[in-house]
Amino acid sequence: MASQIQANAQKKNAEYASNFKEGHLALPPAKKYAVVTCMDARIDPAAAYGINLGDAHVIRNAGGNARDALRSLVISEQLLGTNEILLIKHTGCGMLTFKNEDAHSVVAKNLGAAGQQELSGLDFQPFPDLDKAVEDDVKYLKASKAIPDSITVSGWVYDVETGKLKLLV
Amino acid sequence: MASQIQANAQKKNAEYASNFKEGHLALPPAKKYAVVTCMDARIDPAAAYGINLGDAHVIRNAGGNARDALRSLVISEQLLGTNEILLIKHTGCGMLTFKNEDAHSVVAKNLGAAGQQELSGLDFQPFPDLDKAVEDDVKYLKASKAIPDSITVSGWVYDVETGKLKLLV
Repeated sequence: MASQIQANAQKKNAEYASNFKEGHLALPPAKKYAVVTCMDARIDPAAAYGINLGDAHVIRNAGGNARDALRSLVISEQLLGTNEILLIKHTGCGMLTFKNEDAHSVVAKNLGAAGQQELSGLDFQPFPDLDKAVEDDVKYLKASKAIPDSITVSGWVYDVETGKLKLLV
Repeated sequence: MASQIQANAQKKNAEYASNFKEGHLALPPAKKYAVVTCMDARIDPAAAYGINLGDAHVIRNAGGNARDALRSLVISEQLLGTNEILLIKHTGCGMLTFKNEDAHSVVAKNLGAAGQQELSGLDFQPFPDLDKAVEDDVKYLKASKAIPDSITVSGWVYDVETGKLKLLV
């Protein structure tokens, strides 16, 4: 039997599909760019960042982390023709609220020795300073030999309380 | 000077922010679930999967890959209280169209020795069979010691031509 969450996805999707008219869109993003942003539940990238269906790749992970996104970004650029990256972190991010040792303590407590072992040495990649984290990730992408200099990279902060997006770097 | 892509994000966001009324939402997802899906430009998870702002973490990468999402999923569950995962891949995925050696050839050609070295040994994680890839990722998550048995995991296929979502496993 479907869970409540699964049943909600099925019901809402049936409404979406019944009005769906975008089946003709091509695989490569029409506007040739990729967005890297956080998985945070308070962010709707399409609406907040003005992305129309078919226009851009949207990569999301905990923190809007550039290193985590590298495999996806290389596929986006080298195989699917994008040439610009918007790296967008946000205010009130969960990654500002803990340190690696806190996460590993919680894992040890909740997942026991086997879980601890599976995640041993993992960098959860929290950050103590939002603007600096954006700047660092932009630097990382610009310095990476996997991202050619022809790719435009910008760094942004999205404010989850006002809905405002600010170009930082 | 802002690029066209950057200027579009600024303009569209100004409209979005001027009508924004969701600044009160809490950091932990209200409906306590996480979605893992592809970065593909033809997918709008909020609309297609029925996710209201604030309800769920949305993790996106090339292929809707579970391994790539593990760091984010552990943070989602262990630090932010989610207890269900929807893993959603889709028809017409770019990951169905190449093999690891193809991606590494393109990298060698376009990024030269330095890029090749930086990405040496990287598994781009393409897959030849869509349903099997969904099943494999669900199996991986269920077997992972980093994901406790109390977490409900389901696997889905989204059809980019019809907008229809199908529960697979």
